[in-house]
Amino acid sequence: MSEADLTIHVCTACRRVRADLPEGYDQPGLALAEALAERLIAKGSAIPVLPVECLAVCKRPCTVAFAADGKWTYLIGDLETETHLDEIVGAAEAYAASANGIVAWKERPPSFRKGVVARVPPLPARQQG
Amino acid sequence: MSEADLTIHVCTACRRVRADLPEGYDQPGLALAEALAERLIAKGSAIPVLPVECLAVCKRPCTVAFAADGKWTYLIGDLETETHLDEIVGAAEAYAASANGIVAWKERPPSFRKGVVARVPPLPARQQG
Repeated sequence: MSEADLTIHVCTACRRVRADLPEGYDQPGLALAEALAERLIAKGSAIPVLPVECLAVCKRPCTVAFAADGKWTYLIGDLETETHLDEIVGAAEAYAASANGIVAWKERPPSFRKGVVARVPPLPARQQG
Repeated sequence: MSEADLTIHVCTACRRVRADLPEGYDQPGLALAEALAERLIAKGSAIPVLPVECLAVCKRPCTVAFAADGKWTYLIGDLETETHLDEIVGAAEAYAASANGIVAWKERPPSFRKGVVARVPPLPARQQG
């Protein structure tokens, strides 16, 4: 599993409603990116996790994008560090192992079935397999 | 302007509510893809338009994706052939001419300011400029 198999982009701009905070929101993406990177490193994975300033989804924090050269790109929202870290890692491993980025429905964790924001096919010139 | 500068993916699966039709909906993406391709060819552009079975946005027909090797990918929804064809062509030319896929806000047509569904950065190994 390497950058060639998958790069994970994590949006750090999205605001999550938090009535208990003075500002009324927090921005949980950076903490998710850090926790996800740590978890992958602990597993010996070389999948890179890149914080991104804005994926322009905005209303579904945290949002992440799975992308790789020659594969479909998937955008997934509504992810939380506290509850979904294991599912994100599992989904990442399945995506990285896939030929084209499309993981069978039954192999997708619940948060990845519900959270799809969009997907984009690979460029024709760079399609694999 | 060539495939290297921009590939336009047009979702043909989205259903648009049409109370005047027996089914209650139509699927306007294919007509948009055809009209857009014709318009670009008529202008002498080599930007390819590819119908895609599903971009998984679903609720914002028509949805298109602008993508190119080494550039940000943009997903735009709420586009209609009848009203937005000129704006899509203009946005496509601006994207194709850009170094990284990011077009200045003031140069984006209204439908592209309002319609952003998501964006994804280029893979680190393939970033340009």
